[in-house]
Amino acid sequence: MRISVTHTASAIDSDLLLNKSAVMFDILRASSTVSTALANGCKEIIPVVEVEDAFNLAETLPEGSFLLGGERGAMKVAGFHLGNSPLEYSTDKVKDKTVILTTTNGTRAIRRAAEGSGEVLIGSILNASAVARELMARGQDVALVCAGTRGQFSLEDTLAAGLVLKRLLKLLEDKGELSVACPPNNSTGEFYLDEVPILTNDSFVLEDAAVAALRLAEYYADNPLRALQDSLHGQKLIQLGLTKDLAYCAQVDLFDVVPTYNKGKISLV
Amino acid sequence: MRISVTHTASAIDSDLLLNKSAVMFDILRASSTVSTALANGCKEIIPVVEVEDAFNLAETLPEGSFLLGGERGAMKVAGFHLGNSPLEYSTDKVKDKTVILTTTNGTRAIRRAAEGSGEVLIGSILNASAVARELMARGQDVALVCAGTRGQFSLEDTLAAGLVLKRLLKLLEDKGELSVACPPNNSTGEFYLDEVPILTNDSFVLEDAAVAALRLAEYYADNPLRALQDSLHGQKLIQLGLTKDLAYCAQVDLFDVVPTYNKGKISLV
Repeated sequence: MRISVTHTASAIDSDLLLNKSAVMFDILRASSTVSTALANGCKEIIPVVEVEDAFNLAETLPEGSFLLGGERGAMKVAGFHLGNSPLEYSTDKVKDKTVILTTTNGTRAIRRAAEGSGEVLIGSILNASAVARELMARGQDVALVCAGTRGQFSLEDTLAAGLVLKRLLKLLEDKGELSVACPPNNSTGEFYLDEVPILTNDSFVLEDAAVAALRLAEYYADNPLRALQDSLHGQKLIQLGLTKDLAYCAQVDLFDVVPTYNKGKISLV
Repeated sequence: MRISVTHTASAIDSDLLLNKSAVMFDILRASSTVSTALANGCKEIIPVVEVEDAFNLAETLPEGSFLLGGERGAMKVAGFHLGNSPLEYSTDKVKDKTVILTTTNGTRAIRRAAEGSGEVLIGSILNASAVARELMARGQDVALVCAGTRGQFSLEDTLAAGLVLKRLLKLLEDKGELSVACPPNNSTGEFYLDEVPILTNDSFVLEDAAVAALRLAEYYADNPLRALQDSLHGQKLIQLGLTKDLAYCAQVDLFDVVPTYNKGKISLV
């Protein structure tokens, strides 16, 4: 198994995602909103890139069967039913509904990742363990893809990738799959998951960006919210009065769901 | 002051380096070799991109005044005096000599960064505090530029950027420059250098990649060598028998020198 982390949607090389399990992270807030909506009984989510695409699609659906959701500049789009706060996607609103979603980064990143891997899992802090279990079950190489913020590295997305990775490594370790081959000597290719040594070998490779994401997750393990507060995107949301969104999105394993994007729609695995 | 971290040489946007203090990091091993050579009395280092450029330049210099150094595939180039191990650049070899240096990533990254900023400081773990003091003295926006490995994120380069950043933040804090403006409330834009809260404001911004580098440096603070062992590049060097190079390059503040690239040559500030 080879595990990579990509820091921005624009850095996705679709060809490199072929035959891999890809996971997209956009913690503030598309990933968190998608996980929440589906956990709360939403039928499916259709991510679209442009606001115009959302309105056009809505015209083809029966009245009352759908909700328009998403943001531009972090705020609800005029004429939409919902913004991009996961707190809005409660059961009473989304149950059995189709959500048409458009966000600045997240929906683009999902579609871009899907160009290579066909299917893309949606990862968040809210469902970190569930995503790790799904990756374990699939057993393929893993591509953890961060949406990033305005084309730049995003602290919260990378943290979430690291939280999933940490759980996946634990599952692999419990199954004895991290120590099948011992390197020639103890100082070779050995690294550590907290205090548990993990041995790299020909059949298991953690790329450097994955190690860094793991370390970030270990650094913030006791307080993921602090990472969201440290991020520029988090600080912007706080300035907009969305402090509650940060606290919500930083909850580890609130849901046991794995959203997956396939053929234009997001539903549960 | 705005502080950014770029993860690979290919991601450098030269325009964004204008009027900033730029530092290039290629820990394994160009940066470490440059710092060592200059600390050991080398007159100047001329970084060139291609092996052929190195031989051509050598023909223009008086015999005995120069040394050819560098690597391809981590090994010494045929016909060169020295490889890319900093351990080779001892005083008895390099004193008063011009070193013509070509490495796979590092020399390219230096020249690319210089296209924007004109001048580029060379940072390593060996001179982390000296570089931080120089950045403090200059007082400009800071661009920490990692060379990366084969176009990818490099754990050891980002660690070194974080080690310099951690020291720079401490200097700024000691001078009272991190708390000049208090954000509206305590949960806004506040992050932490170990246990010391740092307040962001309009005149001080840490980009997300810089926060992540800082956290990596804090994670590995007690054992930078472990980060080098965790990296794929480090593991490759170990496999090539270059374990001593890792231990050498992981030494914090071995030298109090700041190499700087300007108009084609690297010398001390």
